[in-house]
Amino acid sequence: MAEIDGQRLLNSLRELATYGKAGTGVNRTAFTPQDLEARRWLVQEMSAAGLDAGMDRYGNVYGRSPGAEQALLIGSHTDTVPMGGWLDGALGVIYGLEIVRTLRKLDLPITIDIISFQDEEGTFVPCLGAKSYCGALEQGDVAKAVAADGRVLSDEFKKADLPEVTFSLDRSRHLAFLEAHIEQGPRLEASGSAIGVVTGIVGIRRYRVTATGQADHAGTTPLSMRRDAGAALISLADRLLREMPRLAGAESVWNIGKFELKPGAANVVPAEAMFILEFRDIDESRIAAMEKGVGDIIAEAASQSAATIKSELIGRVEPVVMDGRLQELLKTAGQRRDGAPLTMPSGAGHDAMVLAQRIPTAMVFIPSIGGRSHDISENTSDEDIVKGCQIMADAVVEFCSAQLKA
Amino acid sequence: MAEIDGQRLLNSLRELATYGKAGTGVNRTAFTPQDLEARRWLVQEMSAAGLDAGMDRYGNVYGRSPGAEQALLIGSHTDTVPMGGWLDGALGVIYGLEIVRTLRKLDLPITIDIISFQDEEGTFVPCLGAKSYCGALEQGDVAKAVAADGRVLSDEFKKADLPEVTFSLDRSRHLAFLEAHIEQGPRLEASGSAIGVVTGIVGIRRYRVTATGQADHAGTTPLSMRRDAGAALISLADRLLREMPRLAGAESVWNIGKFELKPGAANVVPAEAMFILEFRDIDESRIAAMEKGVGDIIAEAASQSAATIKSELIGRVEPVVMDGRLQELLKTAGQRRDGAPLTMPSGAGHDAMVLAQRIPTAMVFIPSIGGRSHDISENTSDEDIVKGCQIMADAVVEFCSAQLKA
Repeated sequence: MAEIDGQRLLNSLRELATYGKAGTGVNRTAFTPQDLEARRWLVQEMSAAGLDAGMDRYGNVYGRSPGAEQALLIGSHTDTVPMGGWLDGALGVIYGLEIVRTLRKLDLPITIDIISFQDEEGTFVPCLGAKSYCGALEQGDVAKAVAADGRVLSDEFKKADLPEVTFSLDRSRHLAFLEAHIEQGPRLEASGSAIGVVTGIVGIRRYRVTATGQADHAGTTPLSMRRDAGAALISLADRLLREMPRLAGAESVWNIGKFELKPGAANVVPAEAMFILEFRDIDESRIAAMEKGVGDIIAEAASQSAATIKSELIGRVEPVVMDGRLQELLKTAGQRRDGAPLTMPSGAGHDAMVLAQRIPTAMVFIPSIGGRSHDISENTSDEDIVKGCQIMADAVVEFCSAQLKA
Repeated sequence: MAEIDGQRLLNSLRELATYGKAGTGVNRTAFTPQDLEARRWLVQEMSAAGLDAGMDRYGNVYGRSPGAEQALLIGSHTDTVPMGGWLDGALGVIYGLEIVRTLRKLDLPITIDIISFQDEEGTFVPCLGAKSYCGALEQGDVAKAVAADGRVLSDEFKKADLPEVTFSLDRSRHLAFLEAHIEQGPRLEASGSAIGVVTGIVGIRRYRVTATGQADHAGTTPLSMRRDAGAALISLADRLLREMPRLAGAESVWNIGKFELKPGAANVVPAEAMFILEFRDIDESRIAAMEKGVGDIIAEAASQSAATIKSELIGRVEPVVMDGRLQELLKTAGQRRDGAPLTMPSGAGHDAMVLAQRIPTAMVFIPSIGGRSHDISENTSDEDIVKGCQIMADAVVEFCSAQLKA
């Protein structure tokens, strides 16, 4: 086994975090000067590690190992949400860099390419860079894309003055994709495991449920003469939350994150009510069962209520399963360095979701302290950062050796 | 029985509605030029009806019958909510005017005084004029009062340039107070009665219930590791709405009119949740029972929830019972002209609430078409307007005759 240089890894992560530094976090949304400077720094670091490195017109930074015909692609993204964490996707990119630095002396026939995708966080288009790289981008999306801060993506392309080239996945070269990321949840910390092997990325269904009734004076209108949109949706939301455990699997999650009543006055019977329910699972058949159950409950409520209840599917993401052989390599490597790793779905989206449509793909998570992410309070212990990279490096060596034997 | 002049009544109501006319309604909030012009017109009309009439420093318009020692006070308010209905309190004031016009020929020893109180709607201070008239005004309230549109009450006093005099209730003169008002609810229309005799004005309790949990990523945080403020209050709100029928009386009403989740994103577990529950009843012991029941349910939820649940009493109005003898006079008069009238509590506040603390007080309601009020769509059929005034006039004659006999 090749031993990584933990201090060198941490130094590179800390240097990257100086670009857009904001307190203990970073502010490096896609195409800001801070993002582009960080990407230019990354090109230099990749070059110094012996790769042919550059940036393409989307801002993807790609470092290609010279000489070899076949490569394992490692990476993630270096853009962040506003006031984001210093690790997040940057971790997965610098893991790739450290693994390249460590393994170049081994002279393996299967080598390592590294990539930092642009705008995974969706400042303009979620997974913009990964979609472009995989030929999954719809040009209409780019033409229309505007950030919440008012920046227009097509203007940002011009201002950034990037090379004309577009990097693309080469399926004859790229045998697989590996991505490391912080967990963004509390499970690893709670379990004591330093590493989580991701089984897949969950699918999502998101419903907007509305009720329309009639605004009435809440003092002068008897209960029996009301069409109370608020009471109708309070009852329905509670019923859904009570029934979800029956409909869901052990790994399912769900949430009602938004709930509004209008006109919203204490003494007026609500004329309109709205909530958003979402649920996630890695298993397509489980998602289908939840869709059916939720639909039945809403339909039953609609048939019984004096208010008019409707629901609309406003978000739909299909689950993606990670490659089984890669998961096994990561589990074996994890077992050797840390004891049996946690296997877990990813409840959030990642670049790996796009790559997995094209080539065998796997992900590892390392613990997020307090489960915090997408906030400057996000952090992971140095020990866990280093251990995660070592486990990934071990799995990479194993992958390349196995390919050699095959 | 003295017959009122229905056409004269309707003409006066329609003339008053030209002040601040806004489509089919009126915009005549307290101390606007429209409100003050309407009040000056009213002084003229009262004078023409033989009363000694004027306005005081608060904007109250009072018309005193000359000659008699004792009087029945009749009135309501001519100010409106923004874009309000043309009848509302104006109805009760013009009923008084029409009854004075009708009964002056009868030469009764007990006569009629009329009043239009200022700012019943609380543009600055709810029931400002009635409170001033009854010595129930707290000067601190006036000094601080600012309207939602930015107008300052103390500035309005100066701009209006009203007489220095303050009109006051004279308990040696004023034997009782009678107020007519539109129902502002759907019960009379549904029952087919042209008149409702008000049993009392409901008391109100209003609670702000809050939950504090923790914002977490709704995809990556297992259900068991959340402190979901939203789910906690959805469950509690539903429980309260389901239990209220058990705690409440036949005439009780309640409402959850406001419900908010924060940060309010579909994919974030709510860190904060808030709803406002209010309930109303005319019976003090029933209100106490609802307070106890609601408090117990909230306390039980607070003891079981992972979120921190708190409640705060943010509104408290005590119920006011209407005078029994006056109610009987109104019921008898109603019976004669329209069949048995509906007896009902008032779910909304009125000037009568203030007067009832000082002298025997009663109210009559006439139907609101579609239950609409506080909106330019508010209306009542001409027939019901006239019938209501006739019934009130009959009761007034009876009151004055009974006083004569006593």
